[in-house]
Amino acid sequence: MGYTYAIGIDIGGTNTDIGLVRSDGSCLARTNLPTQSFRSIEAYADALAEEIRKLLSDKKITAVEGVGIGAPNGNYYTGTIDYAPNLPFKGRLFLQEMVSSRLNVKVVLTNDANAAAFGEKVYGGARDLSDFILITLGTGVGSGIFVNGQMVYGHDGFAGELGHATLYPDGRLCSCGRRGCLEQYASARGIVQTYKLICEETGLAPAEVTCRDLTQMADSGDEVARETWRRTARCLGIALSNAVCFSSPQAIFLMGGPVKAGHWLIDPLQEFFEEALLPIYKGKTKILRSQLPENDAAVLGAAALVY
Amino acid sequence: MGYTYAIGIDIGGTNTDIGLVRSDGSCLARTNLPTQSFRSIEAYADALAEEIRKLLSDKKITAVEGVGIGAPNGNYYTGTIDYAPNLPFKGRLFLQEMVSSRLNVKVVLTNDANAAAFGEKVYGGARDLSDFILITLGTGVGSGIFVNGQMVYGHDGFAGELGHATLYPDGRLCSCGRRGCLEQYASARGIVQTYKLICEETGLAPAEVTCRDLTQMADSGDEVARETWRRTARCLGIALSNAVCFSSPQAIFLMGGPVKAGHWLIDPLQEFFEEALLPIYKGKTKILRSQLPENDAAVLGAAALVY
Repeated sequence: MGYTYAIGIDIGGTNTDIGLVRSDGSCLARTNLPTQSFRSIEAYADALAEEIRKLLSDKKITAVEGVGIGAPNGNYYTGTIDYAPNLPFKGRLFLQEMVSSRLNVKVVLTNDANAAAFGEKVYGGARDLSDFILITLGTGVGSGIFVNGQMVYGHDGFAGELGHATLYPDGRLCSCGRRGCLEQYASARGIVQTYKLICEETGLAPAEVTCRDLTQMADSGDEVARETWRRTARCLGIALSNAVCFSSPQAIFLMGGPVKAGHWLIDPLQEFFEEALLPIYKGKTKILRSQLPENDAAVLGAAALVY
Repeated sequence: MGYTYAIGIDIGGTNTDIGLVRSDGSCLARTNLPTQSFRSIEAYADALAEEIRKLLSDKKITAVEGVGIGAPNGNYYTGTIDYAPNLPFKGRLFLQEMVSSRLNVKVVLTNDANAAAFGEKVYGGARDLSDFILITLGTGVGSGIFVNGQMVYGHDGFAGELGHATLYPDGRLCSCGRRGCLEQYASARGIVQTYKLICEETGLAPAEVTCRDLTQMADSGDEVARETWRRTARCLGIALSNAVCFSSPQAIFLMGGPVKAGHWLIDPLQEFFEEALLPIYKGKTKILRSQLPENDAAVLGAAALVY
């Protein structure tokens, strides 16, 4: 009774997830498309529209508030996806307009980390917070920032790239061409690189591992894996303490694969973060895991854009 | 005709400047008090009220919109000055209330760098900007940040301490007890320390110098002084490029003594800043000198708080 509905679309390089979300934050139905299988953005937009129509008719829903899209390099102001390296479609994509014209509904598009922050604000742990930051850890490191109760887009729609804030001015080379970005230390790949580095330092032959392996290894008592999480926590702790200098948020939420390391990451992170904070900030900003259901987080975030 | 008036107070460790500011941004009269000569915050507040009454009666002005106060460790939310190390008065000072009750006018208090940013927004180069950052270089490094047309105070009123964002995680020890803060590289003292370091590296005996000396030395062809400004510019360039990752502002304004180095600082800063920016930000954010008249900047900023 009194519910409204929205569609949330999370565009990834491999899969595109589409969900039908009720206004109370429950995801009523899900489907997905293999992003890489489309030869053109037009064919992709056609397929998105078709899947959305199917979801709605399956659930006998005749009206939605709108469609929210979270996409890599998505820009809220222009409704475009600009030169996303992991997508099969090149250049600047006017996807907001394409989906809107095919379905005759409001479409809101932004980058995936901003969408996740909207999800946390509308359906998750940030419902009552005016100032918070959400960090996504995964292939890359993304962020969405709320200040004074509003998303920080910046003058051009590209604000909130904390994964590319410089942590070590002469540090690891990043895929963006610069050095020492947080992403090179806190992304899945960066964490594995830290593991290999510790193996080298200690004269051990490094195994081929993933972040999931490193968690299991830490559970089983592997000291190199535990030290890997500690060093990751130190990098994140310093980076997040810098973010506090900017906006002094009530909380910082973490989301994504590496967060599944649980206490191996979170406990030392709390410690390094508090240690790294300027005295006036100590004991005030909470570090929390995202409070969205893990499997629906991205789709919920995209749907939240509509509200 | 149609002008209104405000009082701006800039509290420093040595001097307190008080100005009568007209709504068009002209400072009609100025006076000052020696901050260190007062034994108690009550006596200081009495003297402030007395000086303000004198200014107004001298200019035959009977009503003001309010009094704005910029102070080290000033907090907008609480109207207090909290444990400012450079002031003779200790603890938490309820100065907003003290001045308000003595004069029966609205009093707004915030930290000095935030006040300067308000000045730039109301009377200076940021009049038409919704997203900008102002950096004050001096004894310390302060900042005031506007996002979506609003000052960023954070949840506790202490946001915008970019001088204490960590630039080098294992770098110079800062007065805040942490390491590698921007302030240790871009404050007047930090710049002189960089000069001494370069002297050591090159086997020269360092002279006792100030930032002003370093500018004159650079003018006269001194390569160590020029290299000092270049290194300072590199540190600032990296730090400011990190700030862009946060809020993607239209412009960053610089204010304070070291900015008088002019092109010795600004030219390499532009270069290092552009080089350090993430590609999506390149060529978009301007680095500018504050466009407030230098001698009145702090008082104008404080008065701008009222508007």
